[in-house]
Amino acid sequence: MNNRNLLIVSTSTVHGNGYLGYCEDTIKQFFMGVDEVIFIPYARPGGITHSEYTAIAKKKFNELGFKMRGLHEFDNPKNALLTAKGVFTGGGNTFVLLDQLQKLDLIKTIQSRVKIGMRYMGTSAGSNITGLTINTTNDMPIAHPTSLNALALVPFNLNPHYLDPDPNSKHMGETRETRIKEFHTYNSQVVVGLREGSWLKVNGNSIVLEGELSARIFIQGKEPYELTPKDDFSFLLNH
Amino acid sequence: MNNRNLLIVSTSTVHGNGYLGYCEDTIKQFFMGVDEVIFIPYARPGGITHSEYTAIAKKKFNELGFKMRGLHEFDNPKNALLTAKGVFTGGGNTFVLLDQLQKLDLIKTIQSRVKIGMRYMGTSAGSNITGLTINTTNDMPIAHPTSLNALALVPFNLNPHYLDPDPNSKHMGETRETRIKEFHTYNSQVVVGLREGSWLKVNGNSIVLEGELSARIFIQGKEPYELTPKDDFSFLLNH
Repeated sequence: MNNRNLLIVSTSTVHGNGYLGYCEDTIKQFFMGVDEVIFIPYARPGGITHSEYTAIAKKKFNELGFKMRGLHEFDNPKNALLTAKGVFTGGGNTFVLLDQLQKLDLIKTIQSRVKIGMRYMGTSAGSNITGLTINTTNDMPIAHPTSLNALALVPFNLNPHYLDPDPNSKHMGETRETRIKEFHTYNSQVVVGLREGSWLKVNGNSIVLEGELSARIFIQGKEPYELTPKDDFSFLLNH
Repeated sequence: MNNRNLLIVSTSTVHGNGYLGYCEDTIKQFFMGVDEVIFIPYARPGGITHSEYTAIAKKKFNELGFKMRGLHEFDNPKNALLTAKGVFTGGGNTFVLLDQLQKLDLIKTIQSRVKIGMRYMGTSAGSNITGLTINTTNDMPIAHPTSLNALALVPFNLNPHYLDPDPNSKHMGETRETRIKEFHTYNSQVVVGLREGSWLKVNGNSIVLEGELSARIFIQGKEPYELTPKDDFSFLLNH
């Protein structure tokens, strides 16, 4: 993955801001020089259609100066990816997204393209699948992919929309931290809890956190801890 | 399922109350006449061991006047169920629970025993699996069962720990209601959102909601609505 070029974004939208509004400069810079970005709409937030979802992303990307087509518009999505220079996978339901990528046999295609430099941006579910597996998604399992193995563009797992425990809550459901600790009872990979408004930029073997917040790092058998954008994240790629 | 006798409880614990404290009279009445209740500890909340989990449940059930053994204590769990008069499945992770029941080939055994009157109580994950599938669990998919088909002791799905949207939240993750609506993009069964402090009592073809709160009913293609403990829930069994 020496030529990988990834933008792993926690959420498309932060509270009080329009779709992708808060990170548009980052997106412009990330896709600079790419004429057309291919949108992967398979996560279908709220069950909207591929076309409806693509229209939302396209409007924003057009404003930012990029052409955009949805992957569902191509007769042969695999071929479309083989010539794509940049891809953006939107959020929604991670199970539905991974299931569709598996059914269309696109996992290996995306992996091999990223390996030779195709730029990949994801938000939410689209970020979740850049990790080793989707075992740390927050989503409801409304579809049942054959396997939870994901794109493995990075050698760890993501938890987008990472949410701190609410000390005032009277709800007895598990906190996010409890869930990720349970994950580590059965799985060993590192999990990065990425708060809304944060993103990881991965370029070859360089990885940095951007945005104003810290990220929460979960390592099996250790107490979770915080890393800020000034800290070194490279151990995530070299362990 | 004419002789089914189920207690489908949203949560083991409500805020400010000890384990199963708020519903102990209901439990006593439900298992009345049963000498020993078998505990199914497979959901392992927080990753605790089967023995640790059983000790917690056993302490409470002993206080209430019942003997208790964990299903993991038996050399042959299937045989243990074949003579059990009452079963309690505790909460934790629904994927881990279902996965274990599938691996031990216990699904059909529980179904056939419930059909002829073995009393079944569940809390949280243990309630979730009484529905048709676990596609409406809130849990993190830290295990990957072969299928999401559950015990189907009732012909609908459950969403325990049902949580109303927080109007003050700035978090952009999906609300519970949005998630269940997404579920209905791909699945048609009714979903009952069971709030903490509520339970369903099912006896043959009778079903009632108990506790102080209403339940939220999700029917594909309709707006979700509330039913109170005074309302008729029998349509859930007869559709």
